[in-house]
Amino acid sequence: MTKAQIKFIQSLTRQKYRKEYNAYLVEGDKNAKEWLLSEGHILQIAATGAWLAENDSVIKRHPEAEIIETLPFELEKITALQTAQSVVLVVQKPAAFAFQQPVGQWALYLEKIQDPGNMGTIIRTADWFGIRHIICSPDCVEVYNPKVVQASMGSLLRVNIAEMDVPSFLAKNQRPVYAAVLEGQDIRRLQQPEYGTIAMGNESKGLSPELVNAATHQLMIPGFGGAESLNVAVATGILCAKLTGSI
Amino acid sequence: MTKAQIKFIQSLTRQKYRKEYNAYLVEGDKNAKEWLLSEGHILQIAATGAWLAENDSVIKRHPEAEIIETLPFELEKITALQTAQSVVLVVQKPAAFAFQQPVGQWALYLEKIQDPGNMGTIIRTADWFGIRHIICSPDCVEVYNPKVVQASMGSLLRVNIAEMDVPSFLAKNQRPVYAAVLEGQDIRRLQQPEYGTIAMGNESKGLSPELVNAATHQLMIPGFGGAESLNVAVATGILCAKLTGSI
Repeated sequence: MTKAQIKFIQSLTRQKYRKEYNAYLVEGDKNAKEWLLSEGHILQIAATGAWLAENDSVIKRHPEAEIIETLPFELEKITALQTAQSVVLVVQKPAAFAFQQPVGQWALYLEKIQDPGNMGTIIRTADWFGIRHIICSPDCVEVYNPKVVQASMGSLLRVNIAEMDVPSFLAKNQRPVYAAVLEGQDIRRLQQPEYGTIAMGNESKGLSPELVNAATHQLMIPGFGGAESLNVAVATGILCAKLTGSI
Repeated sequence: MTKAQIKFIQSLTRQKYRKEYNAYLVEGDKNAKEWLLSEGHILQIAATGAWLAENDSVIKRHPEAEIIETLPFELEKITALQTAQSVVLVVQKPAAFAFQQPVGQWALYLEKIQDPGNMGTIIRTADWFGIRHIICSPDCVEVYNPKVVQASMGSLLRVNIAEMDVPSFLAKNQRPVYAAVLEGQDIRRLQQPEYGTIAMGNESKGLSPELVNAATHQLMIPGFGGAESLNVAVATGILCAKLTGSI
């Protein structure tokens, strides 16, 4: 690798440069294969010679990609994650998704989700339940953060992600909103609902009063133990499972 | 802090010394308060003068604890987590819990859960749903790992954790076992079940064939999207919610 190549990939570990170059990193064998099997636009494949040789068939699906053979110590320099990797991809961000009311489909509104692991897990969970529309408030952790990409396990490729603040979302939205709150209606009493948007809030503060008050439903997952709350990704999973009729 | 005090607390960031000294660390303001409000046996409270002054009333609940006033740079040396903390507790491990078949209660069996964040989130989730008996296979991540402690958000104090390998568990168990698998019975078809044990497996490999074959039920959470699987903590949350009748 040239110094310029190392510098470019390193820069993408920072949000500022992901924005400037409109690109993000995908690290590690498992995730790289997921991305190479997709229709995404791959800008660069930086990998060890062994990895390139073993994965020749998936690499060939992306003639647009520049291939950079690297030494293991070079990969260590450019990786954002702690564990050593054999491959890093540079991927072009998809075109911005303009949120439209999806017909006959569920959507997810995320307000100020801060932890990248939670964000990635929520994207993966939404994908599992077939929810393809995710709207993030501008103060959510960026979905192209390397830890979000890693935790999404490829699901980031299969969902549409739009950014909208609470007032814009509420102004545009015309469907039921199911807001997750700690003091709300017991979800066991909810009839199987019509399509709408499931709204989940910040790890410690939950949803803003503005969103909760505008929501058509305030839902609570009943608990019987001592924990103060559920992890937000777990709560998202339970509500998605319940509201989409999967359990 | 003396050098010996720093060395002792630092040593507890490693499993080997947690075992040797039968103690573990609790880091950060929120978790420290949870622990101090509990009946746990606190060996040491290492905190900045400001933190000690602000939290005098909870500290007084633990006359058994040695109080060590620290400077912020000393705390940085002894913390296992990345973010700077104002307090670290040294807590004595509870007496080992000998697993007995709980009557009229659910239990959780965890096989080779590797990620500390997942383990802590699972403990927190079990506590939320009132499941107080958790049995871990010996190859699970240790529950006193600082990242597990942090993600458990105090729930670690409220559950009984036993260690048992799969053959010992199966030999002792006389109740239904509900095993989470990718190819199993659709959980929507399950009648509200009698009390038993919910079994969850490793992040990438799932449960061992030995456990799956011995289980009375093999359950699957139906998915409709592209994700290959759910995160194990999310899947645990959905199964606990469903089987305990909380949704």
